Amino acid sequence: MLILEANIDDTTGEMMGYTMEKLLQAGALDVSFTPIYMKKNRPAIKLEVMGEEENHDRLQELILTETSTIGLRIRKARRLVMKRKSIPVETEFGTISVKEARWKQIVKYAPEYEDCRKAAQEHGVSLAEVYRKAEEACHQKEEGKK
Amino acid sequence: MLILEANIDDTTGEMMGYTMEKLLQAGALDVSFTPIYMKKNRPAIKLEVMGEEENHDRLQELILTETSTIGLRIRKARRLVMKRKSIPVETEFGTISVKEARWKQIVKYAPEYEDCRKAAQEHGVSLAEVYRKAEEACHQKEEGKK
Amino acid sequence: MLILEANIDDTTGEMMGYTMEKLLQAGALDVSFTPIYMKKNRPAIKLEVMGEEENHDRLQELILTETSTIGLRIRKARRLVMKRKSIPVETEFGTISVKEARWKQIVKYAPEYEDCRKAAQEHGVSLAEVYRKAEEACHQKEEGKK
Amino acid sequence: MLILEANIDDTTGEMMGYTMEKLLQAGALDVSFTPIYMKKNRPAIKLEVMGEEENHDRLQELILTETSTIGLRIRKARRLVMKRKSIPVETEFGTISVKEARWKQIVKYAPEYEDCRKAAQEHGVSLAEVYRKAEEACHQKEEGKK
Amino acid sequence: MLILEANIDDTTGEMMGYTMEKLLQAGALDVSFTPIYMKKNRPAIKLEVMGEEENHDRLQELILTETSTIGLRIRKARRLVMKRKSIPVETEFGTISVKEARWKQIVKYAPEYEDCRKAAQEHGVSLAEVYRKAEEACHQKEEGKK
Amino acid sequence: MLILEANIDDTTGEMMGYTMEKLLQAGALDVSFTPIYMKKNRPAIKLEVMGEEENHDRLQELILTETSTIGLRIRKARRLVMKRKSIPVETEFGTISVKEARWKQIVKYAPEYEDCRKAAQEHGVSLAEVYRKAEEACHQKEEGKK
Repeated sequence: MLILEANIDDTTGEMMGYTMEKLLQAGALDVSFTPIYMKKNRPAIKLEVMGEEENHDRLQELILTETSTIGLRIRKARRLVMKRKSIPVETEFGTISVKEARWKQIVKYAPEYEDCRKAAQEHGVSLAEVYRKAEEACHQKEEGKK
Repeated sequence: MLILEANIDDTTGEMMGYTMEKLLQAGALDVSFTPIYMKKNRPAIKLEVMGEEENHDRLQELILTETSTIGLRIRKARRLVMKRKSIPVETEFGTISVKEARWKQIVKYAPEYEDCRKAAQEHGVSLAEVYRKAEEACHQKEEGKK
Repeated sequence: MLILEANIDDTTGEMMGYTMEKLLQAGALDVSFTPIYMKKNRPAIKLEVMGEEENHDRLQELILTETSTIGLRIRKARRLVMKRKSIPVETEFGTISVKEARWKQIVKYAPEYEDCRKAAQEHGVSLAEVYRKAEEACHQKEEGKK
Repeated sequence: MLILEANIDDTTGEMMGYTMEKLLQAGALDVSFTPIYMKKNRPAIKLEVMGEEENHDRLQELILTETSTIGLRIRKARRLVMKRKSIPVETEFGTISVKEARWKQIVKYAPEYEDCRKAAQEHGVSLAEVYRKAEEACHQKEEGKK
Repeated sequence: MLILEANIDDTTGEMMGYTMEKLLQAGALDVSFTPIYMKKNRPAIKLEVMGEEENHDRLQELILTETSTIGLRIRKARRLVMKRKSIPVETEFGTISVKEARWKQIVKYAPEYEDCRKAAQEHGVSLAEVYRKAEEACHQKEEGKK
Repeated sequence: MLILEANIDDTTGEMMGYTMEKLLQAGALDVSFTPIYMKKNRPAIKLEVMGEEENHDRLQELILTETSTIGLRIRKARRLVMKRKSIPVETEFGTISVKEARWKQIVKYAPEYEDCRKAAQEHGVSLAEVYRKAEEACHQKEEGKK
């Protein structure tokens, strides 16, 4: 995986938000902004973009096109990623996809945000309520197996 | 004292740094930037400007002129400020002004930044070294009085 | 205008992002997150929501429903807002709405983000390019009047 | 409730951490640090301390004693706080106190951090696991009542 | 030395604080949180953990167990560390350990935080006062040698 | 290019601001501060300094001299930098230098901050106004060539 970085003090927040959207559409694995302080009392943003190596050119060009930066730093990163699969669970708010992640003895469940968001709005309940029910369903399934 | 505030997501860091400089020249007591997050994934800055009430119009106009904000919030603030006086102390790096602040039994010494900065550069020592010597001189004076 | 505030250390970032969306849908004038540090080494978020007084109940209930906070602070704010109107301008990327803001001798133009975003995507140019053209058109209009 | 505030650029992080500890011991309801940027490229911290009015003198004196600030701002805050009570729940990790908060139709459960922390360490499980079990027990109780 | 990193938007601040504590107990050399902004308006935290290579497995497992992250990045870091030794100094607040660090002509003294904290509380003085006296004692010793 | 990094919790903001100034004078390509949170509730700063390899010793020594850190991390960075040249443009506020940057089909103009700042102050207009005029002049030149 590659990480592209740039410290940016001459692009507005509006443009940065748009740049994030474009980078994600172009296949970036992850995009983050870190608030930093630069010379001459300038509040600035460190842009960090993670991407597959085959996407390097596209992401790099996007950063140079959409922001005012005239340079960027590139580094490779070694990663450990837990093994994931998507499992559907039934809840009183309908079927929710849950991302199950496993590594050694560790098992984690992360309900899909977009599914939960839709269910919360359709059923007029809080997002936390939907997450809780989806997680509960996963743990019951897990315990049923034992 | 007044505090003027604005959440700004469409001005660059460069312009914000310049705005701080102009506000301080125009008599602002203090200016700060707080990194905040706004809608549509926008990194932004909360500008806070403290000023005397008689400076209100000037500071307000400066904010509206130099940044892209189209509005600002205004609030009064009650303050407690320790009683200050400037005292000169002799150090091996020359005379340094120190701000002495008193309130009830509390006494504090803050060497003047610009004096220390100049002395550090003239004598080729670290800024911390100059501060330390200036503070030491103050404490010796204080203890001499007892 | 009212400002509702809460310091939140037990809600996830995912839930906070959703809360911002819901608050804006419910009529909040502005929502911001400020990163703060709380006791026991907890990174946290200060949520600030600006709203009209008649929206107070709805916004307050939303914050208590969607986040884990069990309390919030409420304060009134005095505001200065420049007089705004929306004006359409013609550019090579189509018609763009621009928000014109006036106060005393100050005039500012802010192209509408959503219009520019759509134009940038349709014409395959950078967002900055669209903003630049829309602003240029405004300034030409303004100068034509003189 | 009162809020005491100071923007501090001449106290170290070490001292700030200690100040937070002392303020909480002295009865502050909440203490937070916000990273801010001040003039002359100084990274700084905005200290915010919430306290009851009868604690004002003690908290104020502590801030002036432990930090280098020579002034602070004081404001009153109106608050809405949900009605709370502590309820014990049984889990496979022992009894955990849970803070139940109610306001209108909203009910929330927040397991006591210190109880969960102790249980997690004694049973060699993750803190999240203990929270989950404690929350589950609360919701089962709640649903049992209906 | 290794650095383990993860961008986390679905763990609460409470859990993050606990994770820091556990990582330090497990031998991490340093742990830091950086506030970042992620997609969908999510405030998040970049966790960074520094550790010796032989501790890699333990620290990695802890991060995956205590937080919700399903992946992390790993990088090696080259370091320069000044040569340190602990020296006791006598002050009016008792004996304080001071960390003396040397590299080329640079000498620095850092009083041990825990010693100073205890002395400040026992003698009812500010932490800054204890630090000042401990540093003064070091510099007198140093100058006595010349 | 090299990047030197240190996490600093025992240097004041005042000293950090001075350190930035000294590092830039000593030839650092870029200096940034990132607000971070460290153990024991300490707000801290991650200092990042970019420099050419031949400047390594000087920058390293400066960091160790001016801040309280007793160690730092060193890494090499691969960079992509757009090809730049400085071009003068005529505006109603006098001649302004503009940095033209090119890479593949991308062309960007960045008016020199110090030129614009001086022009803004001499002509009593906003910095944004000067930038706008300088950028306009560049784009007209560019379009004239086609």
